[in-house]
Amino acid sequence: MSYFENFMKANQAYVDLHGTAHLPIKPKTKVAIVTCMDSRLHVAQALGLALGDAHILRNAGGRVTEDVIRSLVISQQQLGTREIVVLHHTDCGAQTFKNEEFAAYLQQELGVDVSNQDFLPFRDAEESVREDMELLRQSPLIPADVEISGAVYDVDTGRMTVVE
Amino acid sequence: MSYFENFMKANQAYVDLHGTAHLPIKPKTKVAIVTCMDSRLHVAQALGLALGDAHILRNAGGRVTEDVIRSLVISQQQLGTREIVVLHHTDCGAQTFKNEEFAAYLQQELGVDVSNQDFLPFRDAEESVREDMELLRQSPLIPADVEISGAVYDVDTGRMTVVE
Repeated sequence: MSYFENFMKANQAYVDLHGTAHLPIKPKTKVAIVTCMDSRLHVAQALGLALGDAHILRNAGGRVTEDVIRSLVISQQQLGTREIVVLHHTDCGAQTFKNEEFAAYLQQELGVDVSNQDFLPFRDAEESVREDMELLRQSPLIPADVEISGAVYDVDTGRMTVVE
Repeated sequence: MSYFENFMKANQAYVDLHGTAHLPIKPKTKVAIVTCMDSRLHVAQALGLALGDAHILRNAGGRVTEDVIRSLVISQQQLGTREIVVLHHTDCGAQTFKNEEFAAYLQQELGVDVSNQDFLPFRDAEESVREDMELLRQSPLIPADVEISGAVYDVDTGRMTVVE
């Protein structure tokens, strides 16, 4: 049995709690959060978000990629957000490998040559948050008056620490 | 005041609830969920996920992009996931525009030429889930034995409906 069936069952219980209500498509706080896919970070709970509050973008590492910029442009220009939070975390999977070794492993496991691809690993989470905040500031697709903040989330304690 | 300050305050309360505990870096269910950034979808609650259960990937539309494939390869080959759920939803921001008009608007608003970029809008959420499940099946970077499921989430009721 796949876990998908479990999720569908859990969702039946959620529907009863949810009730029927139409919230606006535009996020109430006008914030988009860029963070990691990590399973130990539940973004809504950790930041106190209610349904309808904020866009949540997640990929491996919480890195600012072309796809994140695509998503933020839609978030801002179609759906009215004006603030971005970059949130990376401790003990991240993006800290467990280097591009060259990972490419060699994938060549062997999957028979695919990805030697020219950057999987965006990093060493230091504060540094990677600063790098990604800078990428946002430099992007011609992100208006200069958009507020950009950064933080690191500790997966053991749930605590966010601001990155200046 | 930015909303970031509110999130930091809410996080202080969350830390007290969280306590200190180290969960494994590898997700317990071995599932990665690919879904939309929409503010009205709280993935953990809607699918009954506990901390540590599953990777959650989110972008505009929940579309399968190069960055999603990058993230899934890390999720699977570094962190042991073996199942993917593609979850799109009703009333999506990716249904509110077309590439050509959006590019013209961005040229005017931001002075940037994005006329050759696909922002990945779609019309029908079931169809876009099927398209993205097919992209995953065709990718040489996703092993053939990875289980792939799809569903559409109703933002008004919280209900997930399976896409075959």
